Amino acid sequence: MNGKFITIEGGEGSGKSTQVKLLASYLQTKGIDVLTTKEPGGTPEGKVLRELLVTGDKDKFDAITECLLYYADRRNHLTKLVWPSMQEGKWVISDRFADSTEAYQYYGYNKRVDYETLENMYKIVAGDFKPDLTIILDIDPKVGMQRSFAKAQEMKVKELRFESRQLEFHQNLRQGFLDIAKREPKRCVVLNADKDIETLHREIVEVVQSRLGV
Amino acid sequence: MNGKFITIEGGEGSGKSTQVKLLASYLQTKGIDVLTTKEPGGTPEGKVLRELLVTGDKDKFDAITECLLYYADRRNHLTKLVWPSMQEGKWVISDRFADSTEAYQYYGYNKRVDYETLENMYKIVAGDFKPDLTIILDIDPKVGMQRSFAKAQEMKVKELRFESRQLEFHQNLRQGFLDIAKREPKRCVVLNADKDIETLHREIVEVVQSRLGV
Repeated sequence: MNGKFITIEGGEGSGKSTQVKLLASYLQTKGIDVLTTKEPGGTPEGKVLRELLVTGDKDKFDAITECLLYYADRRNHLTKLVWPSMQEGKWVISDRFADSTEAYQYYGYNKRVDYETLENMYKIVAGDFKPDLTIILDIDPKVGMQRSFAKAQEMKVKELRFESRQLEFHQNLRQGFLDIAKREPKRCVVLNADKDIETLHREIVEVVQSRLGV
Repeated sequence: MNGKFITIEGGEGSGKSTQVKLLASYLQTKGIDVLTTKEPGGTPEGKVLRELLVTGDKDKFDAITECLLYYADRRNHLTKLVWPSMQEGKWVISDRFADSTEAYQYYGYNKRVDYETLENMYKIVAGDFKPDLTIILDIDPKVGMQRSFAKAQEMKVKELRFESRQLEFHQNLRQGFLDIAKREPKRCVVLNADKDIETLHREIVEVVQSRLGV
C-alpha cells in the first residue's frame, strides 16, 4: 500500500489522543496527507460498537464476546477506512489498535483469553498486515489514572468502563505493552509519557523521522 | 447441562418464529420449563447488534466483520442466557443459531468466507457445545420471500437487509441448510415448511417426541 500506518498505544491517561493530533499536524507541515482515527469507533458502525464497549457495567461481557466485538470493529475499521486511505497514499494515525486488545484482554485481565485465541482473531481480521510503526506511551498507572479521571470530570465523559478497574489491572496492562514492545522491537518504540506535552511530541517526531524517514 | 437446546433454522418466511412459539406452548403443557429466544438479538446487548446487522445497506459490512458480529452476539447469547438457563434445567428454543451463519455467509454468499474461518469462530465461541436438536424448516425461496415481504408490510418492519438479496442468494442458502442436515443427521431434521401452521407444528412435535423423548 502507498501510505503508512502508525499506531499510538498506551494505558489510560498516557496522552495518546493529544499526541495523535500533534503528530498529524507535524506530518501535514511536511506535505503528507494524514488521516487520524481511533479504535474502537473509527467508523460510523464502529461508534455503535464503541458505545457498547466503553460504557456500562464492567462485567457486562465475557472475555470472548468482548474480544470479538473489538475485532469486528477492527475489521470494519481496516476495510472501510484504514486500508482505502492507505491505498490513496494517506498516512493513517490510529489512537489504539490490536496491541491494546492484547494488553487489556491478555495482560490486564491476567490471561482470561488465551494468547492463541487472540492471535487467531488477528489473523482472521488482518492477515499479515501490521502497523509500520507503533509508539507506546508508557506511564505509571497512578499518574495516568489521575489524568484520566481529571479529564473525564472536566469533559463529563462517561467512558469509564476500564478506568473503574483496579490499579493492579492497569499495572498488568502496562507490563503488557512493554512485553509487546520487547517482542517486536522493529515495529514498536516505547516512550516515557510522564512529561510535558511539547517535549513528548518532539520525541515522537524524532522517532517518526528516524523510523519512517520523514 | 440439565436442560436441552433446540434450534429452529430456515430461510426467510419459513415460519420459524411462529413454530418456536407453538413448540414452547406444547412443551409447557408437558411440564417443561421453556425459554424462547432468537439470534441475533437474544440479549439486551444483542439487540444493539441485531439492529446493526439487519438494517441499513446490504453491503455495509464486509463478510468477516459481519461474521464476527454474529459470533459476538452468539457468544453473549450463550454465556448470558442459553447456558445459564440450561443449567437451571430449562429447555431453550432458539429462532436461528450457528447454522444460519454458515448457510447465509458460506452458502448464500457463495463462500465469501471460507469454511475453516467459520469453524474457527464457532470453536472460539462455543467449543464442543452443539444443539441437542435442530429443526430445519425448508421452503422454496419464492414462497418464503413472498411470505416474508407480506409480513414485513403488515408489521411495518424494516429488517429487510437480507430479504433485499437476489433470489439466487436464497436458493443457495436453502441448499446450505440441506447440506448441513446431510452432514449432521443425528442433530438435524429437515421438514417441508410449505404447509399450514398447525400441520407443521404437529410434525415438529413428533420430531421432538422421537428425538428427545418428551
